[in-house]
Amino acid sequence: MLRRPAALLRFSITARNLWSLLGFRFAPNLASCTTLQLSASSTAGYRTRTRFRAMSTSVNSTPVNEKDEQVFQDLKLLNAVNDRYGGVIVEVREAMDSALFGSVLRASIAQWRHQGKKGVWIKLPIQHVNLVEAAVKEGFWFHHAESNYLMLCYWIPEGTHTLPANASHRIGISAFVMNEKREVLVVQESTGRFQGMSVWKFPTGVVNEGEDICAAAVREVKEETAVDTKFIEILAFRQSHKALFDKSDIFFLCLLEPLSSEVQKQETEIEAAKWMPFEEYKAQPFVQKHELLKYIVDICLAKKDGNYSGFSPVPTTSAFSDEKNFMYFNTTDLNGQ
Amino acid sequence: MLRRPAALLRFSITARNLWSLLGFRFAPNLASCTTLQLSASSTAGYRTRTRFRAMSTSVNSTPVNEKDEQVFQDLKLLNAVNDRYGGVIVEVREAMDSALFGSVLRASIAQWRHQGKKGVWIKLPIQHVNLVEAAVKEGFWFHHAESNYLMLCYWIPEGTHTLPANASHRIGISAFVMNEKREVLVVQESTGRFQGMSVWKFPTGVVNEGEDICAAAVREVKEETAVDTKFIEILAFRQSHKALFDKSDIFFLCLLEPLSSEVQKQETEIEAAKWMPFEEYKAQPFVQKHELLKYIVDICLAKKDGNYSGFSPVPTTSAFSDEKNFMYFNTTDLNGQ
Repeated sequence: MLRRPAALLRFSITARNLWSLLGFRFAPNLASCTTLQLSASSTAGYRTRTRFRAMSTSVNSTPVNEKDEQVFQDLKLLNAVNDRYGGVIVEVREAMDSALFGSVLRASIAQWRHQGKKGVWIKLPIQHVNLVEAAVKEGFWFHHAESNYLMLCYWIPEGTHTLPANASHRIGISAFVMNEKREVLVVQESTGRFQGMSVWKFPTGVVNEGEDICAAAVREVKEETAVDTKFIEILAFRQSHKALFDKSDIFFLCLLEPLSSEVQKQETEIEAAKWMPFEEYKAQPFVQKHELLKYIVDICLAKKDGNYSGFSPVPTTSAFSDEKNFMYFNTTDLNGQ
Repeated sequence: MLRRPAALLRFSITARNLWSLLGFRFAPNLASCTTLQLSASSTAGYRTRTRFRAMSTSVNSTPVNEKDEQVFQDLKLLNAVNDRYGGVIVEVREAMDSALFGSVLRASIAQWRHQGKKGVWIKLPIQHVNLVEAAVKEGFWFHHAESNYLMLCYWIPEGTHTLPANASHRIGISAFVMNEKREVLVVQESTGRFQGMSVWKFPTGVVNEGEDICAAAVREVKEETAVDTKFIEILAFRQSHKALFDKSDIFFLCLLEPLSSEVQKQETEIEAAKWMPFEEYKAQPFVQKHELLKYIVDICLAKKDGNYSGFSPVPTTSAFSDEKNFMYFNTTDLNGQ
């Protein structure tokens, strides 16, 4: 199924560089938004006689049909912005009675249907949680939520919606750090699945929101072991499904070089941390038993003893912002051309 | 900051293979759950005199303190399961009055606090949306939402919570498909940012939930152009931030080999699709202008004319499930050892 948004959000377009540059079909762009502005306050009474006007915010605006203005002018409607995918976006900014909200929402949907709109988005800050039930009663469903807001959506046309999904993956790293004595940095965990198992493993962790993979690897090693490192390259990665909250994971095996040697374990979640001869790490029954870990051992040894090339981070600019993002590729082979 | 869950969900542990195998600290595991079972129905009246009993579901269960049972036995409490991170999970399964729910929730939190619990999760199916407001009034915030449920969370101890974040990334692909005449498969898009720009670009798309990257690339090329392909390898990838819904993106540049040649464009979103001489693709001002696209041209040519090695998909098994997942690495270098 092709994925694209019927409507996209004003607050989510700060850096659409990659998607836009490569032309992802759902890259958000609200440069051509038209704002429907109500002359009455959005918290004023229902069925107040109001007029709304189209307020163009760009050269590509889509003016509202004059006739539409007349048909719905006796209804109090929700403020909304259009997007270039034929949908509308409502961001609730003021407190409102939930029964009133339900009525206004119903009237607004009727107008949007009349205008041929497709997707409808409502961004509901948590302080206006009293309106959630009314929206669901009007047929809205949950799209996603962050700690401080819930995004609801609705699809006006007949047939299956083409609204884009929210983020689907969590990103993790595992850090391969070997010193000059061919010792590898390993930890034992005091919480979670590995608790009490006495398995020595590479430091691992989750990439935070907005964090570069290469930065996350350095941070996690520092947090768990206090060892400073320099990120070198990504040696391999693995995608898996149906993990935490039913989402997918991509886990990157990262090569880092140690910049310090003294190990000091993180207190709350790391039982022990040390430098261990790589052969000893490899010989652990748990490592020998599992295909994935055996691949990792082979790849790490190929890197240290062979000519294995991974993907190195290279900062690139994008078409539509000055922000630098990392591209990862085989720079050894590319530069060898 | 270290990330791990205070509580994890029974319904999200179907395949925790990678995280578990590598020992990610928040790998969900509820093998040691203890279920608190109420003798009265959860929809029965508040302050009904009930007794609850600990029902062990595994050999590692954590029995409920006998004294706790006595202290709270005169309050109607919510059904909950423990996890190994010291938290509790409530899944609302039955309709309930919202005021009653608020009271019961308050009493339950008091008990969990008494027991030294940390995180509290409430999974609220959309049909029980009437309970959202009551939970927020008790101090819960939104963790994430899928179309049919909202996950709320709460942190009992003093200090910053250590609950794990939800998925943070969307995964996209761009497909490099070149035929024997050195023509590359390209499309023009009829919607979104590239609409009307006359830019010829590689087919691109988003990896669906639960879909392998290599499968997504083949699917997207087929959908947009009707051309059958075989996935070969990942040539490069790029991470960017603050994209759709403020989430991050990872975009994989994929090499595919064509298995058919006839092009038939997808109707609704693709304006045009064709085979184009690579030199002509490369000469486009838009491609020449942007650093990322120039890197992509260089990498594609290095692959076709040089010795560039990308990451190939290799199915691997995990420690804790029979499911096959793809690991991607430089098999050329590894096998050349």
